[in-house]
Amino acid sequence: MLVVQMKERCGSLDVARVCDLLEQSGRGARVVGGRKQLQVVSGGNEKEGEMLAGLPGVAGLAVTKHSFPLASRDVFPDDSVVEVAPKVTIGGGNRVVMAGPCSVESRSQILATARGVKAAGASILRGGAFKPRTNPYSFQGLGNEGIALMVEAREATGLPIVTEIMSTEDMEWLEPHVDIFQIGSRNMMNFSLLKAVGRTRKPVLLKRGLMATVDEWLQAAEYVLSGGNSKVILCERGIRSFDKSTRNTLDLSVVPLVKSLSHLPVIVDPSHGTGRRELIRPMSLAALAAGADGLIIEVHPEPDKALSDGAQTLDLEAFDDLMHSVASLVEMLELDEERRKCGLSIAM
Amino acid sequence: MLVVQMKERCGSLDVARVCDLLEQSGRGARVVGGRKQLQVVSGGNEKEGEMLAGLPGVAGLAVTKHSFPLASRDVFPDDSVVEVAPKVTIGGGNRVVMAGPCSVESRSQILATARGVKAAGASILRGGAFKPRTNPYSFQGLGNEGIALMVEAREATGLPIVTEIMSTEDMEWLEPHVDIFQIGSRNMMNFSLLKAVGRTRKPVLLKRGLMATVDEWLQAAEYVLSGGNSKVILCERGIRSFDKSTRNTLDLSVVPLVKSLSHLPVIVDPSHGTGRRELIRPMSLAALAAGADGLIIEVHPEPDKALSDGAQTLDLEAFDDLMHSVASLVEMLELDEERRKCGLSIAM
Amino acid sequence: MLVVQMKERCGSLDVARVCDLLEQSGRGARVVGGRKQLQVVSGGNEKEGEMLAGLPGVAGLAVTKHSFPLASRDVFPDDSVVEVAPKVTIGGGNRVVMAGPCSVESRSQILATARGVKAAGASILRGGAFKPRTNPYSFQGLGNEGIALMVEAREATGLPIVTEIMSTEDMEWLEPHVDIFQIGSRNMMNFSLLKAVGRTRKPVLLKRGLMATVDEWLQAAEYVLSGGNSKVILCERGIRSFDKSTRNTLDLSVVPLVKSLSHLPVIVDPSHGTGRRELIRPMSLAALAAGADGLIIEVHPEPDKALSDGAQTLDLEAFDDLMHSVASLVEMLELDEERRKCGLSIAM
Amino acid sequence: MLVVQMKERCGSLDVARVCDLLEQSGRGARVVGGRKQLQVVSGGNEKEGEMLAGLPGVAGLAVTKHSFPLASRDVFPDDSVVEVAPKVTIGGGNRVVMAGPCSVESRSQILATARGVKAAGASILRGGAFKPRTNPYSFQGLGNEGIALMVEAREATGLPIVTEIMSTEDMEWLEPHVDIFQIGSRNMMNFSLLKAVGRTRKPVLLKRGLMATVDEWLQAAEYVLSGGNSKVILCERGIRSFDKSTRNTLDLSVVPLVKSLSHLPVIVDPSHGTGRRELIRPMSLAALAAGADGLIIEVHPEPDKALSDGAQTLDLEAFDDLMHSVASLVEMLELDEERRKCGLSIAM
Repeated sequence: MLVVQMKERCGSLDVARVCDLLEQSGRGARVVGGRKQLQVVSGGNEKEGEMLAGLPGVAGLAVTKHSFPLASRDVFPDDSVVEVAPKVTIGGGNRVVMAGPCSVESRSQILATARGVKAAGASILRGGAFKPRTNPYSFQGLGNEGIALMVEAREATGLPIVTEIMSTEDMEWLEPHVDIFQIGSRNMMNFSLLKAVGRTRKPVLLKRGLMATVDEWLQAAEYVLSGGNSKVILCERGIRSFDKSTRNTLDLSVVPLVKSLSHLPVIVDPSHGTGRRELIRPMSLAALAAGADGLIIEVHPEPDKALSDGAQTLDLEAFDDLMHSVASLVEMLELDEERRKCGLSIAM
Repeated sequence: MLVVQMKERCGSLDVARVCDLLEQSGRGARVVGGRKQLQVVSGGNEKEGEMLAGLPGVAGLAVTKHSFPLASRDVFPDDSVVEVAPKVTIGGGNRVVMAGPCSVESRSQILATARGVKAAGASILRGGAFKPRTNPYSFQGLGNEGIALMVEAREATGLPIVTEIMSTEDMEWLEPHVDIFQIGSRNMMNFSLLKAVGRTRKPVLLKRGLMATVDEWLQAAEYVLSGGNSKVILCERGIRSFDKSTRNTLDLSVVPLVKSLSHLPVIVDPSHGTGRRELIRPMSLAALAAGADGLIIEVHPEPDKALSDGAQTLDLEAFDDLMHSVASLVEMLELDEERRKCGLSIAM
Repeated sequence: MLVVQMKERCGSLDVARVCDLLEQSGRGARVVGGRKQLQVVSGGNEKEGEMLAGLPGVAGLAVTKHSFPLASRDVFPDDSVVEVAPKVTIGGGNRVVMAGPCSVESRSQILATARGVKAAGASILRGGAFKPRTNPYSFQGLGNEGIALMVEAREATGLPIVTEIMSTEDMEWLEPHVDIFQIGSRNMMNFSLLKAVGRTRKPVLLKRGLMATVDEWLQAAEYVLSGGNSKVILCERGIRSFDKSTRNTLDLSVVPLVKSLSHLPVIVDPSHGTGRRELIRPMSLAALAAGADGLIIEVHPEPDKALSDGAQTLDLEAFDDLMHSVASLVEMLELDEERRKCGLSIAM
Repeated sequence: MLVVQMKERCGSLDVARVCDLLEQSGRGARVVGGRKQLQVVSGGNEKEGEMLAGLPGVAGLAVTKHSFPLASRDVFPDDSVVEVAPKVTIGGGNRVVMAGPCSVESRSQILATARGVKAAGASILRGGAFKPRTNPYSFQGLGNEGIALMVEAREATGLPIVTEIMSTEDMEWLEPHVDIFQIGSRNMMNFSLLKAVGRTRKPVLLKRGLMATVDEWLQAAEYVLSGGNSKVILCERGIRSFDKSTRNTLDLSVVPLVKSLSHLPVIVDPSHGTGRRELIRPMSLAALAAGADGLIIEVHPEPDKALSDGAQTLDLEAFDDLMHSVASLVEMLELDEERRKCGLSIAM
């Protein structure tokens, strides 16, 4: 595919000319407004690229064999850095930990969790108000009330909040309240919802579908990016395989793979990825060692009383212990990156 | 779980009393209006059942170990027969064939296909207007215009129409136009959408998610049923496995399995199930031999020119040939059922 | 790949010349003695083919893109017909049913089963003496004694016998006793064992590995064929998928697919394929409707007392009922084939 | 299941009495000689345990719900430490790196690799002489000559060697030459081969089958242990899933899971686990962070010229770089273990 980068102050006629030429050559053209300047995305390749080079308003051209041009590192080589709140950014070397309960259950529960995870070093609060439950008779979350409690927890701690959106109809009223929209695994191919979050300017945490290939996942990201929203954070949370000894099969190899294919940050959810509390600590460390830009972890003051996902939830003490290990590992990884850079520079 | 069948003319106080008692015993209670009379569904079991037996307004009680009580054959032993149009019903021995293009592409294409499949013996016309495409730059369907063309094809042929709905926002305007709402594989766990079609009274064709267990599929059906819509038709369309020699792995064993677990009709989609034109004929016959209540097949006047899914689409001649084989097989299966019934009655 | 068919009475120097030329062009060459005449298999293609055309001793040349040239229908277009016993052949329109217990347990058990399945119409007796069990402490089969009992059952009924071989060390003494060697699913990639049965001249029933692609399965067949044994019968017995509602996922689409890729006969095992007794009947019919050349079914006089696999085993009465349905279906399929042939001849 | 630990100097009559009592109660009994003293393994539970407690010769009793009693941590709580060579041990905190080419190709290749990986810090040399290839016409390894070259490389470097055994027939002559027998993924359920290596006293590297559950893998280990060979090292090497973006899906969560279920050491193969050279480094670090006892990595002086698996093979320079990172990570993990132990001791 072909991405035409337009100049910052190009005229609308310049854009129209590029689109016309691409349409005439049968390749299609789509104007995207996401990453600072306008881009035109097309099915074309080098040939169409040559045709457009040097036209007024055209700043640059990039061709990629991938079907996710805006998500592709071929086209945008530098790491995307997603700003969530004034001092909270993800990607480009900034590793973050998101933590909180599966579901918001009560005022005291969410406030205690928010304070606890903040004290331990988390920088974003997670919590579900609208819950995608397999069974229609299961607890479906507190809904609007849950959102209000999340907002209160943010005010109390300063932590930005991430929560799942399940329906396009909730988009408008939710947008002012949340800091990150989460798209859950079961909705990764809900293309209506992807288009809807593509129209907002809030960051989107896009969980990998439990049955999605890497290619499908990056094309789902492309739905959001091509809507004009460049703030996408990918999240590996385990895929479905034949083996049920863990709830899902956490596919950590995709972390370095996706980071080579795409400039988007990738975080890991070891809670859903394993479904077993005792595996969260080792798999959190493994995720970071594999190159993840962060973690999202389920934490509850009393996991065994949680209304959902208790078996895969840490208590505050275990989370605090984990955060100590995380700090040591991150330090080691940063030093090792330094060593390797020096080695490379000496080699040159 | 426990299903309390209320009498046809029970009073609202009777319903309230049943609910109260169930709530007090901590089991939850939910009133469902779907299958002719009101039901109360609860997490309770035999114990709560005994408590309610004989109360005013209570017509009957059923307990099931399944998490999909309204879909369960334990609770409703008789086959559901879904009426789609005056003379078109599915289930309870009525086998139907739905046929038509993957996408509606033009007036001539859909009219030619509708006439052709009707002549060959199909009784429902399929055709996509809103297409769930993995890639945001792929053809996304004709949208509203596609629906108008489907309606025209119905008028021309008398065939009722089935088409996919992808967003809750389309529900209201689509409902008067379509005869069956299709929920696609990628939306089987889009719970907002399931709830929305649960509120209509149009039949729902619920495709199995490409990575959904049988249990999850029946719980998805339960979302629709518990919304008050009893007209659910299940559709096996292949699951995702490690082997890519076919597009999906058509899991025909679930046909007899689901029919033993549930009263709902089950049809099979050999087009998506195999992704290969030459496999559609044998797998259509296999599906019926396995006990399916019908088929849904992609047909196009010129498959190699189709805008989507051409490789898994029959032309009209091949479809006609298939329908001859289908007729012979259905006759053989009906005779064999007769033989077995006689054998059983002699044995008794 | 390239297959050079040598003339029936070609000299050894002719073969040597062909091999030399292929080796010199860096493509490798392997002489195979299986299908009546000698063949030379090589990694070459059209180019090498041209070089060899017309050489003394060369009867014909075939090029295939598949990695299983001897199993490929490209190279050998006609159906292979495997002769198991004087009047028992598989393939080329000859459909057979193999039936018997999972394990041979006792003299009375195997004799009663053999007589029962013969009376119902089965033409081959199955029974395991060496059992591949996941757990080392489980019943491992009667071993040599089991083989002796199978032989006795053959003498009593005239049914040829098929039994599993698990180790190359058993090959020599087993060969005179069995009519078909079965290679179990877990040994489909036990290449030492495949080479060993490739050196015998007894038919080989090659079960698909529970996680083998179609391509790997046909390459496993190629191991046997390239050893010089052309009597290979393939058997689909279910693959492993994420869904555990059936023991395995019976992948019937591979029946027509494999028959288009290969000339080898394909049968289906609905017992292992589903793991559930009540699904055997519908899936047996589905397998035949999909084009299978036969079935292999677990039957036991008292399934609930079986030492292994009772849950997926039919009793003699249910097997007899199934065989009536099988007969009706086979008749219908043969008539339908006639109809289609006539239709084609009229069309021409 | 029940494991009866016999005293070190118990008499044979004591053992016979225990077996008789278990057999009489219908639970079966099997005498195993592996872990220093004799054990009797039985299907019994607490009830049978009580019956045997205090009998002459009985040192202890352990009951487990697992089907792999000898592999189970319930029964043997302490980490197994497998001694491979005088100063090379695996498990119990001893982490090792095995490295070398996929296949032994030539004298110079294996010697250069052995010297290179030793210099970088590897402590065991891997190399295949008998190769399990999917295609019968692919390079099948150098066979006996390959073993001779591995032995020469051991003499030159002092590194103990690990190589795959594919057939029981090779056991006798191979045993004196190798330091570790590798059982490949495709043979994990080749029960004849598992029984054969269970009769030797050489360590066994048991790769997880590409389709094996954790439970099946530990039962495969039980085949070896119950044959009397207690030196089993488990190796996760990736499973087969629907996603082909990596060659296999490296399932690192099983590392901490298996270590909680079993006392056996677990190592990881990131080469086969990912199939992509650029992913080996991050996934090696991730494996150790997840708790693995070691790594096995494919290394070749010129990976792009390798006869097999070149795409997943490191060159010596990249391996050396990796080993620096490994050393830093191991140091960090050991310090973190210290911190956590201190924290726990303060907490008490």
